[in-house]
Amino acid sequence: MVREKFLLGVVQLAMTADSDENLAGAVRGIRAAAARGARVICLPELFRSLYFCQAEDHANFALAEAIPGPSTAALAPLCRELGVAVVASLFERRAAGVYHNTVAVLDADGSLAGTYRKMHIPDDPLYLEKFYFTPGDLGFRAIDTRFARLGTLICWDQWYPEAARLTALQGPEVLVYPTAIGWHPAEKAEYGAAQADAWRTIQRGHAIANGTYVVAVNRVGHERPAGVVGEGIEFFGGSFVCDPFGVMLAEAGRTDPEVLVVEIDPARQETVRQHWPFLRDRRIDAYAPITARFIDER
Amino acid sequence: MVREKFLLGVVQLAMTADSDENLAGAVRGIRAAAARGARVICLPELFRSLYFCQAEDHANFALAEAIPGPSTAALAPLCRELGVAVVASLFERRAAGVYHNTVAVLDADGSLAGTYRKMHIPDDPLYLEKFYFTPGDLGFRAIDTRFARLGTLICWDQWYPEAARLTALQGPEVLVYPTAIGWHPAEKAEYGAAQADAWRTIQRGHAIANGTYVVAVNRVGHERPAGVVGEGIEFFGGSFVCDPFGVMLAEAGRTDPEVLVVEIDPARQETVRQHWPFLRDRRIDAYAPITARFIDER
Repeated sequence: MVREKFLLGVVQLAMTADSDENLAGAVRGIRAAAARGARVICLPELFRSLYFCQAEDHANFALAEAIPGPSTAALAPLCRELGVAVVASLFERRAAGVYHNTVAVLDADGSLAGTYRKMHIPDDPLYLEKFYFTPGDLGFRAIDTRFARLGTLICWDQWYPEAARLTALQGPEVLVYPTAIGWHPAEKAEYGAAQADAWRTIQRGHAIANGTYVVAVNRVGHERPAGVVGEGIEFFGGSFVCDPFGVMLAEAGRTDPEVLVVEIDPARQETVRQHWPFLRDRRIDAYAPITARFIDER
Repeated sequence: MVREKFLLGVVQLAMTADSDENLAGAVRGIRAAAARGARVICLPELFRSLYFCQAEDHANFALAEAIPGPSTAALAPLCRELGVAVVASLFERRAAGVYHNTVAVLDADGSLAGTYRKMHIPDDPLYLEKFYFTPGDLGFRAIDTRFARLGTLICWDQWYPEAARLTALQGPEVLVYPTAIGWHPAEKAEYGAAQADAWRTIQRGHAIANGTYVVAVNRVGHERPAGVVGEGIEFFGGSFVCDPFGVMLAEAGRTDPEVLVVEIDPARQETVRQHWPFLRDRRIDAYAPITARFIDER
């Protein structure tokens, strides 16, 4: 059964050090998207805070919360009121010493439809996530909501074709990537355009390879939280939606909060996959070595 | 050990019904690339013939040849004379009733460095390859030559991230995709630009995901071999080389034979992979289900 088409909302945000203010900004964005008809609404990665992973500081663990917890409790009545599903990226406290970078998907009745814990964790200058986040142990996931089946992935996952494939094989219409990616100011002039282009290109590639819509939701703004050495990160926005053949449908700017509302048509997915039937011809008999770290010379 | 940089040649060709003429065109292209300094030279898919897979005709099996065989025998002295490695895509006769779409890699001393048999076989209107080609049974391969380790893949393989990954994990500096892709003339106006863009985008995605140079070598020309129903295929050229971050280095036109010569610098691969260390963080503990055909709801 092919689902009905629906409108999807992308809420690109700028964050501050005030968690309540960030929540209020997200709520405003959700209301704005819903007012334009969006039924599934996606927020950027870790929208409750500045991107604290720029420094290794134990004090930041105080930002973590349970799921369900305060953020899902705040968003659930809004989902019910507006009749929308929301993809919310949160810093999850699972147990003392076990923290995850997690997406909570709230359905249109306010219930928690499911969670996904970021599987690929980066550790690079100013993206010190391995210090904070235990790698996900839920595997790759597609989560049903009233309007669509959503394949949930998070930021660094977007560079891994395996993640997109393993999620897409579970049948979602859409892959959603809440993201926090930006430029190191010192690198921007020389490498900035290529970096943003690579980020967009690889995700369009996932759309094409898998015949799924792809949604990337990034933040904007130059953040330099207390304790960070250097110039901080200039988050580059550019949130976008592309169709199951990688065609760009909408793209946000690089500097300001912005709401995109884009039609998702599962019939389009069906058509693309019939005309470019990549899933038909996969050589599943030959893919097992993909679990190798590297294939050394024999 | 990081290898020395070298020049790679891409020979975009137009084919005719005359196999000897096609060989002569390939030889001219190889000489032209070598004269500009290319040390590794790549030819398009099935360069000895028109793209015969537009119709299912048993007579076309007569085009198949052994490997090693006439084509490798013709190219080997040229490789020795010029001191170049050549990637040659051939219609392989392996046994009565067992035919493959195969790449032969000839090294600069004229020896056969290795072969790769196309793993993913399409079957779509005018691309009736499942009639002709037994799926490859050599797995994914990287083949050493004097100048570089080459990851050899063929056309339809280019839509499969698994193929790029499994080849890249064997350590090549370059992934090479001999190709025969074009437009159905009736679709070109509406879908042509998106199709060519998707083709380029997904391969750039493989470069980014794996930190390898990617080379695609296509043919040009409108071919409508005898026996083909309809308007035939307008092969869209656009052969290109991109770097390990997906940056386009050179791109051929859509209508004419053309030789590109591009520098490949293994040190650039090393730098890109150090700065975007995707191979470091692969979740090999979680990828095993990629051998599933589809993951049905539980």
